[in-house]
Amino acid sequence: MSRNPSILFRQLFDRVSCTYTYLLGCNKTRRAILIDPVKEHVNRDLSLLKRLELNLQYVANTHVHADHVTGSGAIKTLLKPAVVESIISSASEAKADIHVKDGDIIECGDSIKLHVLSTPGHTSGCVSYYCPEGAFVFTGDCLLVGGCGRTDFQQGNSAQLYTSVHQSLFTLPEDTSVFPAHDYNGNLMSTIGEEKRYNPRLSKSQEEFIQIMKDLKLDLPKLIDIAVPQNMICGF
Amino acid sequence: MSRNPSILFRQLFDRVSCTYTYLLGCNKTRRAILIDPVKEHVNRDLSLLKRLELNLQYVANTHVHADHVTGSGAIKTLLKPAVVESIISSASEAKADIHVKDGDIIECGDSIKLHVLSTPGHTSGCVSYYCPEGAFVFTGDCLLVGGCGRTDFQQGNSAQLYTSVHQSLFTLPEDTSVFPAHDYNGNLMSTIGEEKRYNPRLSKSQEEFIQIMKDLKLDLPKLIDIAVPQNMICGF
Repeated sequence: MSRNPSILFRQLFDRVSCTYTYLLGCNKTRRAILIDPVKEHVNRDLSLLKRLELNLQYVANTHVHADHVTGSGAIKTLLKPAVVESIISSASEAKADIHVKDGDIIECGDSIKLHVLSTPGHTSGCVSYYCPEGAFVFTGDCLLVGGCGRTDFQQGNSAQLYTSVHQSLFTLPEDTSVFPAHDYNGNLMSTIGEEKRYNPRLSKSQEEFIQIMKDLKLDLPKLIDIAVPQNMICGF
Repeated sequence: MSRNPSILFRQLFDRVSCTYTYLLGCNKTRRAILIDPVKEHVNRDLSLLKRLELNLQYVANTHVHADHVTGSGAIKTLLKPAVVESIISSASEAKADIHVKDGDIIECGDSIKLHVLSTPGHTSGCVSYYCPEGAFVFTGDCLLVGGCGRTDFQQGNSAQLYTSVHQSLFTLPEDTSVFPAHDYNGNLMSTIGEEKRYNPRLSKSQEEFIQIMKDLKLDLPKLIDIAVPQNMICGF
């Protein structure tokens, strides 16, 4: 469901890596964009596009993922000869057809306009995609429901993540829906207002936040040695 | 997100049993209803209600589940002395504060009106909850995304399930969002139109459908001997 009737919206889930994939379609032109697809679910996602009579124009990633391989490459291959362009931030230094930076706007059909917000900290190339017309933002691994992405590898930087959230995401309208790249507890979404007030990490001071992140001591993602190199070349 | 701004809508997921729980809140009166909560996630769900400043009035189940224990009993106990009433169909023969039947309307706050549709077949007591104002229907285990609930135990009946879908759910407007009780492939929702056209079982004739269900030969749910007796007494 979408709050804007001209934008078709679907959220999809990968139970293995707990990744959310998002599909946005322009109801009028039938053009569509997929955000953060997972390689193992490419057939599911392409079937859904077909059922909804949508033509995929873009596949965008919020960052170079470390826990799963992006579906971008497989989708581009499977949908040929239709031209589907992959998108990632220039700061990620990953291969893609289109490189975006803070302030850019991705237009898809008549109704979808995604504003690129640079939100580094989990990785140095993380971006969020904000859609004012739909009142939602795809925050990748920067801001999660009651959490945030880890900052202990891939150029992670806790101070930078805190700044991204407080100076960029938390300045969006409070009723903006937050759609993260992951959730491990069955939460599908949140709002900027809820995260400002209740995020147990990011509602704290920057100093306290940095200490919380330092104390996490997480294991490395199982797939990091496979996923990062493949994602640097768009999953090919 | 909800298509109706006066209704607050949240979908939640249990990764173990792949169950969806739904929260509906009236934005004006702050009254809320939870549909198909899972016992293990009661604390998550109650925290969300608190963050959203909602007062829970009802906990409704679509049927007596065989794969997980309902959170209804635990929620009623934890929220005392506030009065939360549990709801299930009278045809289920399960214990609850309120028993509903086809044609009943559950009102919650000013904006939420759930029409009870009798949709037996997975169990003889299955109901769907239809909200015309929000243009969505909670179909329980009757209609799933590209599938349906099994019909080989708990008074399951394939012919009856087919009739429920075709004579009740498929008569709803085609753009009605379908929110099922489960999905095992990362689909969160569908629409009546999509299921009418593409559901691989239910777009077939009744005869073909009955044969498809006969050929499934599924294992029994692991928790059936624990879940069904507990759910017959509302999870207490």
